[in-house]
Amino acid sequence: MTGQEEERLARVALNRLAEPGDLRLAALVAELGAVPGHRYLASERGAAGLATDVATRLAGIDPRADLDRAKRRGLRFVIPGDDEWPPSLEDLDRVEPLHLRGGAPLGLWVRGPLSLDALTRSVAVVGSRSATSYGTDLAGDIGAGLARAGWAVVSGAAFGIDQAAHRGALGGEGVTVAVVACGADRVYPAAHRPLLQHLASTAAVVSEAPPGGAPTRLRFLSRNRLIAALTRGTVVVEAAARSGALNTASWADRLSRVLMGVPGPVTSATSEGVHEVIRAGSATLVTGPDDVLELVGGAGDHLAGARRGEERRRDRLTLRQQQVLDAVPLVRSAGADSIARTAGMGATEVGAALDVLARGGFVERSPAGWRLAPEEPSATRSDAPAGLDEATPSPA
Amino acid sequence: MTGQEEERLARVALNRLAEPGDLRLAALVAELGAVPGHRYLASERGAAGLATDVATRLAGIDPRADLDRAKRRGLRFVIPGDDEWPPSLEDLDRVEPLHLRGGAPLGLWVRGPLSLDALTRSVAVVGSRSATSYGTDLAGDIGAGLARAGWAVVSGAAFGIDQAAHRGALGGEGVTVAVVACGADRVYPAAHRPLLQHLASTAAVVSEAPPGGAPTRLRFLSRNRLIAALTRGTVVVEAAARSGALNTASWADRLSRVLMGVPGPVTSATSEGVHEVIRAGSATLVTGPDDVLELVGGAGDHLAGARRGEERRRDRLTLRQQQVLDAVPLVRSAGADSIARTAGMGATEVGAALDVLARGGFVERSPAGWRLAPEEPSATRSDAPAGLDEATPSPA
Repeated sequence: MTGQEEERLARVALNRLAEPGDLRLAALVAELGAVPGHRYLASERGAAGLATDVATRLAGIDPRADLDRAKRRGLRFVIPGDDEWPPSLEDLDRVEPLHLRGGAPLGLWVRGPLSLDALTRSVAVVGSRSATSYGTDLAGDIGAGLARAGWAVVSGAAFGIDQAAHRGALGGEGVTVAVVACGADRVYPAAHRPLLQHLASTAAVVSEAPPGGAPTRLRFLSRNRLIAALTRGTVVVEAAARSGALNTASWADRLSRVLMGVPGPVTSATSEGVHEVIRAGSATLVTGPDDVLELVGGAGDHLAGARRGEERRRDRLTLRQQQVLDAVPLVRSAGADSIARTAGMGATEVGAALDVLARGGFVERSPAGWRLAPEEPSATRSDAPAGLDEATPSPA
Repeated sequence: MTGQEEERLARVALNRLAEPGDLRLAALVAELGAVPGHRYLASERGAAGLATDVATRLAGIDPRADLDRAKRRGLRFVIPGDDEWPPSLEDLDRVEPLHLRGGAPLGLWVRGPLSLDALTRSVAVVGSRSATSYGTDLAGDIGAGLARAGWAVVSGAAFGIDQAAHRGALGGEGVTVAVVACGADRVYPAAHRPLLQHLASTAAVVSEAPPGGAPTRLRFLSRNRLIAALTRGTVVVEAAARSGALNTASWADRLSRVLMGVPGPVTSATSEGVHEVIRAGSATLVTGPDDVLELVGGAGDHLAGARRGEERRRDRLTLRQQQVLDAVPLVRSAGADSIARTAGMGATEVGAALDVLARGGFVERSPAGWRLAPEEPSATRSDAPAGLDEATPSPA
């Protein structure tokens, strides 16, 4: 068995163990890795030396059989290290959770021929189930415009805006992908069986929930973070106040994706949520596909480049590693136990994180424990004599 | 004759001489003052010692007769130094011109019992003449909501949004003021005679153009800057792309007023201009009077305070004085003639400006001419020993 296959089996097992977006599991895997994390949980023993509840449940999971069964249903489990794994998902490990869900998924269950790396150029189009014809017309226009420009559309599979966005993209002869809250082999809502079957035979239906999983409110919330993370930007077409589409919008915002909103009449309740995010300044107003393409395309490429350029090294750390770093005192050394207490995290995890931080040059080991590594000297100050520039001969 | 009356006569004469928003006249008055400026222009002689065209025209203007005639028609000319003069207009001397118009007005012709200091709490509601019923309904709602909350409404006197805003404010039993492009004693458009007469008998009709003046395109553009400057914020209700309301919006933006826009269906051409300013980030999306009040009231007061706090001394200079200051070399002294050449301005004006700048501590006279005054030492660095704060006993 290759390392990648061992990794896949561990992730399938852990994926069965917990709900999508489970923060503790994401933290464990981010710190220890999936295979050691799985081994750690499987061998956990409680107070009387008995297997814990988690260890018992893990012992009952047969990931190889799960994978075989899924394969027979046309599903594969895509994980980090696979060619088609979208690295954009790992941004989820660098941002704060929302509604107690977060973290990169352990993997994605995929049904359909599309390789997920096609989502490098993709835009999410989301909105209300109870959309007006104004909203569905616009979602269709935007889906079609994106498709014709060679961008993939990502949405849910709900009535209203989701459905209209997929139909528009299909009309524009483009790629459109449904990210669903239930298992990728299930159909919800039932009326969308033809749509989902079409997407599964031509593109992809994607889910974090294990095959056969039912749609739950929690899974919808966890699913929304994937729609935001997989795409370059999110367009909210119609959304009432406190609508689910605004949850996706929040994720797009915290993931520094381009967040866009289509305005409507202020007298329309289904535009209230969109107006709110535009007014708050988190979303940019767009009126059609051209505006969207301008923001995610030209300007987006540019911004993405600029962000990479000024990206602080710290941003490449996971959230948990950042928490450990923040717990190292500013002025003197501290022991790992003391840092763990400050961070409110376990000693094992903190020890592992400190090793990562030391390799990254953030902290260093001292006789008295751990301390912050000295900062690089500032390169902005110049002691060149005044007027030197004027004395430099100019070309020609 | 008091100084203030002499000032008023000089300003009436100069107001007759040039078009509203004339940049050269505004600069002359800002630098020399109205009375010396008037005297200077009236005594100007051309190459052969003959009176210039301007001096000849000034000789034909009888400001006292103008004022008497205006008074008989119920008009007064409000100028700086009058109790009701809105100091907010002077912000116009601190911002760049637009379409070659700009500067604080020499004075305002006012018809009506309202004292202009009532405009301290006012909001401009502007938009298309060819508004939809969606737009006029909203303009009416916003006018009424502002009026009921004790805010004055300022608008033009055009069909569509202007008219609806005034009607809404009157329905809310509040103060509403028309700033017009023609003389304040004229009626344009003719169909708005009842509206303008009602405003003139209960509040005010205001104009920068002399009595009897006809409405021209140039005067509309100049008028727009007054609407923006007189008010705490500007709401654009409906505006097509390249509409006049967007000109008012640009003025509000450069004057750091609160700029707001009401969105509409993206399929409506009369909302295009509004969507544009919201998308560009210059206007905040508002959906009704409550949003407007939140932005100009609570938050507005707060922002105004913050801006005053961090206002750089330089911002208190007129634009021409800033230009002179920018022409003083950074490293050595220069003569006034050399500074005038760099600034592209006349020696007299530059000499006057340098005197003002010296009194303000911006420049100082040196044996070799003028140089920048040394900056105050930074007060941000602290040499207090580390930990002093911790040693301070905390209160009980």
